[in-house]
Amino acid sequence: MTRDPAPGDDEFETIARLLRPLAGAPEALGLQDDAAAIPSRPGQDLIVSQDAMVAGVHFLPGDRLDLVARRLLRTNLSDLAAKAAEPYGYFLTVAWPRGTGWGERERLAAGLAEDQEQFGLTLLGGDTVSTPGPLTLSATILGWTFAGAMVRRGTARPGDRLLVSGTIGDGWLGLKGARGELAGLVAPEAAEWLAGRYRLPEPRLELRDPLRAHANAAADVSDGLVADAGHIAEASGVRLRLNLERLPVSEPASQWLSGRADRAEALAALATGGDDYEIVLTCAPDSVQALIEEAEAAGVALSEIGEASDGEGMTTVFEGRELQLARTGWRHS
Amino acid sequence: MTRDPAPGDDEFETIARLLRPLAGAPEALGLQDDAAAIPSRPGQDLIVSQDAMVAGVHFLPGDRLDLVARRLLRTNLSDLAAKAAEPYGYFLTVAWPRGTGWGERERLAAGLAEDQEQFGLTLLGGDTVSTPGPLTLSATILGWTFAGAMVRRGTARPGDRLLVSGTIGDGWLGLKGARGELAGLVAPEAAEWLAGRYRLPEPRLELRDPLRAHANAAADVSDGLVADAGHIAEASGVRLRLNLERLPVSEPASQWLSGRADRAEALAALATGGDDYEIVLTCAPDSVQALIEEAEAAGVALSEIGEASDGEGMTTVFEGRELQLARTGWRHS
Repeated sequence: MTRDPAPGDDEFETIARLLRPLAGAPEALGLQDDAAAIPSRPGQDLIVSQDAMVAGVHFLPGDRLDLVARRLLRTNLSDLAAKAAEPYGYFLTVAWPRGTGWGERERLAAGLAEDQEQFGLTLLGGDTVSTPGPLTLSATILGWTFAGAMVRRGTARPGDRLLVSGTIGDGWLGLKGARGELAGLVAPEAAEWLAGRYRLPEPRLELRDPLRAHANAAADVSDGLVADAGHIAEASGVRLRLNLERLPVSEPASQWLSGRADRAEALAALATGGDDYEIVLTCAPDSVQALIEEAEAAGVALSEIGEASDGEGMTTVFEGRELQLARTGWRHS
Repeated sequence: MTRDPAPGDDEFETIARLLRPLAGAPEALGLQDDAAAIPSRPGQDLIVSQDAMVAGVHFLPGDRLDLVARRLLRTNLSDLAAKAAEPYGYFLTVAWPRGTGWGERERLAAGLAEDQEQFGLTLLGGDTVSTPGPLTLSATILGWTFAGAMVRRGTARPGDRLLVSGTIGDGWLGLKGARGELAGLVAPEAAEWLAGRYRLPEPRLELRDPLRAHANAAADVSDGLVADAGHIAEASGVRLRLNLERLPVSEPASQWLSGRADRAEALAALATGGDDYEIVLTCAPDSVQALIEEAEAAGVALSEIGEASDGEGMTTVFEGRELQLARTGWRHS
């Protein structure tokens, strides 16, 4: 664990008092060394992903820091979930705005502690620095799979079915809810539920065994379903067709949908909105039933929403009509 | 590789055009996946460290971004050097100030490319986001050692000798030089050389084999020699005595020293200043000669500067007189 080149006492105390208790694994060396030493696990691959969050960009400046910390871990865990990896540990860089008080630092550490416990993670190391800018967090998360067993983006095949977990659009609507922009559009408790889905996503780690057994390709839904399925299409060299009328939506999102004049436009907004942290995946047609059943047994609903074919790119269809979606919006074709 | 939740075209193009060419190793999956998959190496440990840099805190806002990128890699490589690890790869988070132009992005990528090549690193993944604050970089660096062979901070023994590589104080003086604060204190070319030492440290990777063969404990000098030796003392549960009159100083630093009225005070400033990225280490007395010779054969000078004994903490001595050094300054005892 390292600190500012001109470290203040705050940075030393943050490590000693707040972060060291989170780093109990022997390989973290009590955060007292320059580095962690992680023993290889013969027959396994280390799966590594990195996600950053900036106050005012990736979370709201007023959000409680325990929730921000948990959201950071969960967005990183979502990457591990999509890769069918078992969570192991993480490295954390925090750039603190100058003058950040102890109450806020403690709240951040409490959030880390809570989700470490829940998801079986340990803090392995990192860096704490000060910044004249906004609070900035970067986590590098580590997980394990059997050698060669990581579920990839680039291995979808023509003929595969396209599926997605949970419900789509809650993250995008939830950000509106957290900003108070859903008043009058959905019931207050629906807005609150959606805001909770934005603030505290559920990484779909329960999908690990079903994904390993059946999925040909998978990604987590962070940029938006259309964009992330598009990443699978691009990396795999296939065309993916998404049927918007099959988009799984939550009851609160249905409230919002029911008030929209153009259902295709509204569904497209949900499918391009991002921050869902669900899993989009493909599998062979004869695996769909088993995959859905095994996922359900693990507590996660999967919905079939499209298919892969020869070609390239994403095709988004509503009731047989093709929609042209741009990255930052959409228009009818 | 991931991006902003509301990514602009700049972030996609930064990855595709500038970062993907840096990620040629198969385990990086062309930055097209949620994660990298790193095969275990039976009999080896993965050594992992994380260091962040914020514009205006860890580098000067006007510094060229190729130099900033190289400094980031080198400060991370310095951690691997201290641990006697072989460099392997890195993950990079960049938070770009909004409106960062292509010239600057290209310069950063060019700096990464140059030092990847020089030090045998590959880009494995990361995240690129935008920020309303200053440019912020965080790298997670990975290296390999034989299982259990990482040289630690916490394994110094009473009776060990204390040694340091290269020269000390150049980083601290170099920051002054880069700010134009050495005018009249050293010759212009000396100020320029010192600024170069600050901007582009040399990670002491050549020390790998000598450290593995002889060192009991080691750390890199980033916070300042006294602080980093203090970390070894604390982690090892020994007392370390540093003899300031033996501090190895460069010729340009000697110019600065010769103008100081109080030589003890001036040496203490060099020894507490930080940013040297040299290696401070301990070894058994009967290993000193072999260690110095093997390091010299590898092109790195080592100087014996003190010793370990039973007890705790750092003792800093000048010509037999003990100095009281605070973390951010010093005073006579």
